[in-house]
Amino acid sequence: MNKKIGIQGIKGSFHHLVAMDYYHKEVEVMEHLSFHELAQKLAAKESDEAVMAIENSIAGSILPNYALIDEYNLTVVGEHYTPVNMNLMALKGQEIGDIKKVFSHPMALLQCKQFFKQYPHIKLIEDVDTAEAAKRIHDEGLKKVAAVASPAAAQMYELEILAESIHTIKSNATRFLVLGTEQKKPNGEKLDKASIKFDLKSERGSLVSVLNIIRDCYLDMTKIQSLPIIDEPWKYSFFVDVTFERPEDFERAMDVLKLMTEGLRIFGIYKNNLS
Amino acid sequence: MNKKIGIQGIKGSFHHLVAMDYYHKEVEVMEHLSFHELAQKLAAKESDEAVMAIENSIAGSILPNYALIDEYNLTVVGEHYTPVNMNLMALKGQEIGDIKKVFSHPMALLQCKQFFKQYPHIKLIEDVDTAEAAKRIHDEGLKKVAAVASPAAAQMYELEILAESIHTIKSNATRFLVLGTEQKKPNGEKLDKASIKFDLKSERGSLVSVLNIIRDCYLDMTKIQSLPIIDEPWKYSFFVDVTFERPEDFERAMDVLKLMTEGLRIFGIYKNNLS
Repeated sequence: MNKKIGIQGIKGSFHHLVAMDYYHKEVEVMEHLSFHELAQKLAAKESDEAVMAIENSIAGSILPNYALIDEYNLTVVGEHYTPVNMNLMALKGQEIGDIKKVFSHPMALLQCKQFFKQYPHIKLIEDVDTAEAAKRIHDEGLKKVAAVASPAAAQMYELEILAESIHTIKSNATRFLVLGTEQKKPNGEKLDKASIKFDLKSERGSLVSVLNIIRDCYLDMTKIQSLPIIDEPWKYSFFVDVTFERPEDFERAMDVLKLMTEGLRIFGIYKNNLS
Repeated sequence: MNKKIGIQGIKGSFHHLVAMDYYHKEVEVMEHLSFHELAQKLAAKESDEAVMAIENSIAGSILPNYALIDEYNLTVVGEHYTPVNMNLMALKGQEIGDIKKVFSHPMALLQCKQFFKQYPHIKLIEDVDTAEAAKRIHDEGLKKVAAVASPAAAQMYELEILAESIHTIKSNATRFLVLGTEQKKPNGEKLDKASIKFDLKSERGSLVSVLNIIRDCYLDMTKIQSLPIIDEPWKYSFFVDVTFERPEDFERAMDVLKLMTEGLRIFGIYKNNLS
């Protein structure tokens, strides 16, 4: 039986492309209308694993997704990077001069902001999913309307691409997490990256002390983000990603961090896929 | 003549409430449909200053807004914290059992996620602005539809509050920046906080060295966020907020950081409003 993989959005969405890319084989995708539903269904084991967008170079981390991972006690078992590739598409026969409205996901519209500056008469409207906007144009035969989505969505929903690669920053990529319900077991491959969270009081130097430990244990930090903790002035949560050569270095660092920080949580240990 | 203050959204929006609170006096608000328009109009001096949401405890920083501040060469001249207060509102006479759809800003819906779990038949639909959703219900006499917005929006657009304070985390606050086009000049009050950005190569320990300088100069860091730089593997931008007692400590730290980092940008020096 094929593995069931939860995605946000529908077939043809960027999450769908990531699922195809990451698993390199037949998987059954489970379409979800929100990240919340995706997390919920995975926790209920209605899917086996799920892919979830977590950050890009424009918007930074999607922190509410960490809250979902926490809330549903999910684990990070992998990561995947996908280049951004945004295309303007509409029903066959439509031309760009005909288009009055463009629907897409807010992040997709943000990535194409520069392109649309030359078409001030086009109204940009936020939608839940890139592919869903494309599908609706197809299903309802909407004229004068376009979607911003992947080439796969154009093909799947029989739309014509009016302008390709319309995103401003050509080498931008989105990072996705692959989620499960248990910590990943090494399966031949090297697990050399981890996502962790911890809380710290803002005593002068406490973060420096933690970063010194991370450095002394030969971990390399690829991401850090602080978040104020509600109701506890000057106390912060930190979300940190680290890479390492030897798992025992990571374990040693975590043993110390357990004592130096509060609420240490290891979201998962997985293979670094940033080439 | 009253000062013209740009806001995102329309009258009754949270940005409008912040403008009223922050200026404690008559100001003329300029309504904008997007953060982009807000930044653009301020840069063109069509408004004198503007307020812009920048972070909250659920979603973290709204990084694209930093990109707008950068792009339009705006400055941070102040900050303001507003408690989240979300309310469900509809036309008079409607009851919660009648409601089929709820419109609001994605962040507002996110903050009320728990509340809506008890009403699985209600469809949540993302909108550009909380107050705009309320206004549309009023203007078009929409039945079976509700908005999530501030009490001020309910009053302004003659809607009835069906459920008050429906946000999950009761003490959550949103932080807003007050933006101008020039660095703030001290005007009697103490300017004891600054927002800066710098780039660093991920050489082991380089961030630790910068944080050591910040500590040695008696600055307290209230926020840190890293963002990978596109096309430059293992190079990161850092967005940092610091507070300090003496402006000369801040200047000293910046003199060193200019040499240790690349692309140091001081978005602004302003009064710390976190009580």
